[in-house]
Order: sequence, then structure tokens, then C-alpha cells
Amino acid sequence: MSPRQLKLGANLSGVGNSISFWRHPDVRTDASVSLDFYKQQALKAEEGKFDLLFIADGLYINEKSNPHFLNRFEPLTLLSALAAVTANIGLVATLSTSYSEPFTVARQFASIDHLSGGRAGWNVVTSPLEGSALNFGKGGHPDHALRYEIAEEHLEVVKGLWDSWEDDAFVRDKASGVFFDPAKLHALNYNGPRFSVQGPLNIARSKQGYPVIFQAGSSEAGKTLAAKSADAVYTAHETFEEAREFYRDVKSQAAAYGRNPDEILIFPGIGPIVGKTEEEAERKYREIAGLVTIDQALLYLGRYFEHFDFSRFPLDEPFPDLGDFGSNSFRSTTDKIKREAKEQALTLRQVALRASTPRTAFIGTPGKIADLIQQWFDGGAADGFNIRTVVPNALADFVDLVVPVLQQRGLFRTEYESDTLRGNLNLAVPGNRYARQSVRNH
Amino acid sequence: MSPRQLKLGANLSGVGNSISFWRHPDVRTDASVSLDFYKQQALKAEEGKFDLLFIADGLYINEKSNPHFLNRFEPLTLLSALAAVTANIGLVATLSTSYSEPFTVARQFASIDHLSGGRAGWNVVTSPLEGSALNFGKGGHPDHALRYEIAEEHLEVVKGLWDSWEDDAFVRDKASGVFFDPAKLHALNYNGPRFSVQGPLNIARSKQGYPVIFQAGSSEAGKTLAAKSADAVYTAHETFEEAREFYRDVKSQAAAYGRNPDEILIFPGIGPIVGKTEEEAERKYREIAGLVTIDQALLYLGRYFEHFDFSRFPLDEPFPDLGDFGSNSFRSTTDKIKREAKEQALTLRQVALRASTPRTAFIGTPGKIADLIQQWFDGGAADGFNIRTVVPNALADFVDLVVPVLQQRGLFRTEYESDTLRGNLNLAVPGNRYARQSVRNH
Repeated sequence: MSPRQLKLGANLSGVGNSISFWRHPDVRTDASVSLDFYKQQALKAEEGKFDLLFIADGLYINEKSNPHFLNRFEPLTLLSALAAVTANIGLVATLSTSYSEPFTVARQFASIDHLSGGRAGWNVVTSPLEGSALNFGKGGHPDHALRYEIAEEHLEVVKGLWDSWEDDAFVRDKASGVFFDPAKLHALNYNGPRFSVQGPLNIARSKQGYPVIFQAGSSEAGKTLAAKSADAVYTAHETFEEAREFYRDVKSQAAAYGRNPDEILIFPGIGPIVGKTEEEAERKYREIAGLVTIDQALLYLGRYFEHFDFSRFPLDEPFPDLGDFGSNSFRSTTDKIKREAKEQALTLRQVALRASTPRTAFIGTPGKIADLIQQWFDGGAADGFNIRTVVPNALADFVDLVVPVLQQRGLFRTEYESDTLRGNLNLAVPGNRYARQSVRNH
Repeated sequence: MSPRQLKLGANLSGVGNSISFWRHPDVRTDASVSLDFYKQQALKAEEGKFDLLFIADGLYINEKSNPHFLNRFEPLTLLSALAAVTANIGLVATLSTSYSEPFTVARQFASIDHLSGGRAGWNVVTSPLEGSALNFGKGGHPDHALRYEIAEEHLEVVKGLWDSWEDDAFVRDKASGVFFDPAKLHALNYNGPRFSVQGPLNIARSKQGYPVIFQAGSSEAGKTLAAKSADAVYTAHETFEEAREFYRDVKSQAAAYGRNPDEILIFPGIGPIVGKTEEEAERKYREIAGLVTIDQALLYLGRYFEHFDFSRFPLDEPFPDLGDFGSNSFRSTTDKIKREAKEQALTLRQVALRASTPRTAFIGTPGKIADLIQQWFDGGAADGFNIRTVVPNALADFVDLVVPVLQQRGLFRTEYESDTLRGNLNLAVPGNRYARQSVRNH
């Protein structure tokens, strides 16, 4: 067995992140609000010894939003429910620092961490959509730089609250009547530019210390936040070279902050389409791509650009020059779309169809998919992968067909090493800041 | 069978709401953060055909707080987990309108409602503890009247968000590609003094329409909010006469707002101590009461009065005159303590011990407990009861010993009537405000 082991996450998304996925005959159309569906997926991923389940999120919809976004479970409640019906798999929820209170966030994630016996994770995002502000009565959506300032401070407050109780604070001695040691209870007394939070938090640390921190923005500010503070990074790249460059960049930034680069795991998202033959895989791709009309593809593309109306541009002319437009939302995505359109001289139609149903390299037989995964993993482009469902039953296909190949190659576990998410990801349990201080003071 | 049926809730509270409950030999000292404990309690309540589980909450602790409050699950995450392992019982979580965003609240409760197939309830509270503000970076804790103004507006916004989607909005027709009917999606566009929320919410109504709304404050402002907007009220009374007066008051206020008084259910909280004999029940009470020291009792009493230090007053002199002090926190509780101390000429010691381990009438054999319940239910003092655990195994004792008596008398169900909480509480499913409008417009 290779000493370094691949990590796998299952990105669960109900009726799917693409526009027309729900129309496929094999898709359950109420999947986004079906606990049965999520439970079945969770158990399949756990059967495949996946490290974690991942639930994305958003805080603003309108009539142009994708079907899955319109009517879906809220991630923390969904993962709490899944905590009760799973045993080993990690539970990673997306939650925005732009529209939440650190005390509530610290508390709900710590609660999931206890409910699951140390399997919680938080994917820290800053809410790309301008419209989010309208649902929270804020003056306006903070700009990209400010959102990341808020995120950094929010995350520090949350981590501080998680340290309210030292790990051995709860004595619970019936004979003496001592429930806890007051010297091991700490108020945070935080006062900063954006947040003022006294604490202490009304829940202990779990056995993994903190929930695992994921970060998902690939902009420079996102990478910096990840390099400073995250345990793991979600990203997305079409090519091995791109992924390797991102990997190198984040790991070296982490090192520059004095961290061991092995302590931050990079998880590119991939949407493998597995067939027993190349032809079967290709057919699955064509089936899904064929369900999207060009009108839907334009709407989908527009969503990344603050619901920009692309329908007034000619379809078969070069992709329009948008200048700086779209830079406050999904910045890394929109920059990439604009760059590729220019470099490859793509038409609007090509850009829209490519965005709505990307055709990646991860299409083919189990052996071919495993080869690519191994190339990225061994070649310094990934520590693990976040597996997205881009065709029906993609997760089951991956578990049944690809995981055994990865296991045979010694790249992936055949049993869970731990019952915590940190344990399975081979990440250290963070010490409590107050416990460390008291040791230093001796 | 009596046409009107008793309703029962189980108030689950880990290591208990009293100071020293955890010291009893039969209590699991980590119960407040044990999913196993809550799951076992939930299944027992469901075996007893209880209508609902209820989880109280608080947003501020310090070193004087009761053991259960120091380290407990957050209610929404806990009830989400329990949703996955129960089938019929309602799931009612306490959440404060003073320190939450309506969009997030609407979303998380709607999500639990879908996860549970229509079994969610929200106990709307305003956070009695002054210190809560310190954990949320607010200027200060809003005063009692302002908290209820905020609560009323918050609740209206949440209900408005719950109506974002008409019940038949999701068409999900694969052949035509129509996922939803845009005419049945509604933005709230709310702009009020405290909240501005555009909507729509990104989750549909569940089959019970709205989660069931509980209200738990017994002050005048609390009763008014309940009479206007709640489906059910939690309250607490030591005597039948007091309970009957409260019942009459809330029902008549509801009628004054044009509501059918049957549409608002009154749930006094009781802590029954059941023994196979009177002596056994008395022994159980003495065992629990005997675990509390007078110092602990003074601390406990102080908590209702903003952590007032009662220890500097003589124990066996009349209860001190506090004037208006304590009126911004647990107002109805502190008013009652002060009034009773004066009327009954109680000493500080008596008030403190009584507050920490109240000795109510609901102590005795199953037949005696059932008699009292029937008296309150038939006599216009209660529509149901919220059963608190004041001695170990109290819920199991109630289910095993008292429920069968109530069932034999035709007062309580032997099978669930419905799979939704509203259905079991015999409350109507609220119509969607927009659907009603479109009917009116025809």
C-alpha cells in the first residue's frame, strides 16, 4: 500500500447542478428535498469508504435559478439528519460568513460534530451572489475583498469560540458534585472591526477538536484565506497542468505562513462519467448534454454573471467583451470563462453549452478514470477529489466500478482508519489555545 | 372515546433543568451531548404516542449556569438528527427572534419540516438573558417590550417566506421540461422597521404548510403574541386555578383577534413524578431534592434575576424586596416568585429551595397523575401537557404507567392519527397567502 492515501468526497446535489439533469429518466425529480435520496447516497458513499459528504449552498434565488437551487434542504439540517444514519463518513456543510453570526455558526457546527461523533466539516464561503444581501436586510452585498476580510475575522472568532472549553473541562464527578472545572472554561472576549463576541460557547469541543475547515474560493483572496486557515480546499480545474499549478500555489502559500504543506489538502472537483466501455461512457455524456437547450444554457451562463442576459447577443459570433463585469460574484469562474473564450476564440453558443455541460477528461472506463486520478494524485495536482454527480447514478458507478480499482492499486483505503473526519483525512487534532498557554506557563 | 383528545409533548433536557439532577446515580452525565440518549428518549416518547418532542434553548452561559446549559446540543441540529430516526412524533425547537435572521430561520425550519415529512415546530422566544447580546455583538439586549415587537415582525417575515412557493408550484414535468410554474413563485419584498427581506425562500412549503408555531412567554406581551400568531402556547402553573385563568385569558384574547379559540392549544409544563405507590413517588422526589445544596439553590434562583447574588442576604429572613429588579429577563417567572414570597411570607431559603426543586401536585400513583391531568384537561386549564423530566426515567415511567391509564379513559390516542405534527394536533394546514389571493381574484 502506498503510504500516501487518496481522499474522496461525494458532492451530493439532489436534482443536480446542471440545468436539465432532472429531466433524465433515471433521476428522481424531488431528490433535492428527499431525505430518502440523500440517505441512500450517503450510505452508498460510506459503502465506498468515502471520507466525506459535501453539501454546497446558496442564499439567493430568482426565477432563473437552476432547479436544484430553487427548492433544496438547508445544509446543516440535512447533514444533522445524515449524522444519525451514518457511522464513519464526514459531513461537510457550506455556510457563508457574509450572512451569519459567528456564535450561531460555531454552535451549530459544534453540535453536528457532537451528533456525529467528530465527523463535521465547514466549507467556508463568502456568498458570491449579489442578491443575497436582499434576503438579509443588509445595505448591500459586500465587495469581494471585504467579503474575504469578513470571512477571515469570522473564522477566527468561530475557532476561538470552539476553544471555550478545554478538552478535560467536564469533570462530572457525582460524589463531589463538581460538574466542570471553572479554570478550564474561557470567555473569548473578542472585539474586532466586524464582530464583537464575548463567549463562552455553550457546547464543548468534539473529539476531533474543531470541525474540519474547507475553503472553496479559487480567487487570490480565497487562496490566501485557505493557505492561512483552512484544512482543505475545494477547487475545479479542467486540466492536470492547471490543477498542478493551483496545488503548488496553495501549498507554497501555506508554507509561507509557516504551515506544513501536508496539513492542507487540495480537493479538485471532478464529474466522472464511468462506463463499462468507452462507448457506454460517451453515450451517458451525450444523453445528459442532449437535454439542454441553448436558451437554458444561456440562462445558466448568465447566473455566473449576476444573471446577465446573454440572449440579446448573437449566438455564433465571438463571446461578447464584458470588460470587468461579473467580477464581484463567481470571480474565479468568470475570469476563466472570459480568458478561455478569448484564447480559444469561442462563440457565445460554444461557451454556453460548454459551461452548462462541461465535457471533461474524466469520461471512460473505470481503468481510464483511475489512471487520471492516479496521475493527478501522484503528479502533485490533488490530495483527493470531490466527486460530483453529472450523470444519473454517477456515485454508485464510481463506488462500484472505480473504487475497487483504486483499492487494488493501493491508493485508497479498504476500511476507515478512524471514526472522525480528521482521523480519516490524516489531519492533526488542533490543540486548545488556552491549554497550550497553560502548558507554556509552567 | 372522548371527541376532544389530550396532546402530549416530551420536554427533553439532557442532564436536566435542575442544578443537581445529573448527580443522581441513574443519570447519564453526558446526556446533554449524547445523541444516543436523545434518540432513546425520542423513541420512548414515540412508543407512548406523544405528539411532540420539545427542545428548550438559551444563548448565554457563564460559570454559574446550570450543567445542562453549559454544554448541550443546538436544538435545530439535534431535531434534524432525530427526524431521521423517528417516524411520527413532532419536533419542536426553541429559537430566539432577538438574535437570528428571518431568512435563515425560515429556511432551517422548513428544511426540518421536509426532512421529517411535516413534523417541525418552532417555539418562538425572545431570549430572556441580558448577556445574550454580548455573544452577538449587538449594542445591548433589547428591552422586554422591544423584544416582543421584534418577535412579532420576525415571525410575520418568516411566515411570508414560507409562502414563497404555492403548494402546486413544482410541476416537474420531464417531457415538457417545465420544473416549476413561475406564476406560483412569490417574492415577499418585505420592508419593515426591523427587517427587510426580499425572498423568495429557496425551499418549498412542507405538507403541513407551516411548521407549528409555539410561544412560550407568559408575560402580557407573550400572551398577546401567542393570541395573535401562535398555534400553541407553553406555560407553567402550580395550581389548576392559575392554569385555568391563563387558559381562559389566552383563548379569549385569541377570540378577540378573530380566531377560533380551538385553534390555539395551551400546554402547561408539568414534571410528573410517578410511583407504583404514593411512597415510591415521594421517595423519588426526596432523592432529587436532597441532592441540592442551599448554595446551589441560591445560584439557581439568581439566574432568573440576571445572576443576582442572593448569597449576601440572610437565609431565614423574609425574601428581600427587589423592587422592579429582574423585570427584563424571565419577567413572568420573577413576578411570580416575588408575588408568592410576599403573599406566603416565605424566607429566602424557602424561595430558593422551592425554585430549584419545585414540589408540584403531580406526584403519586399513575391513577392520581391521570386524575389531575384529566381535571386540568376537562376543566378548561389545558389542551395538553409538556412533560418535563424532573426525576430520572420520568419519561419512561410516564409512557409505561400513565399513558395506558389515559388511553383506557379515552383521553389519549392509541395510534397516531396523522404523520404530520399539525395533523396530530388537529390543527388546520394554513393556506398560502398568494393562493388565497388568486382565488379571491377569480
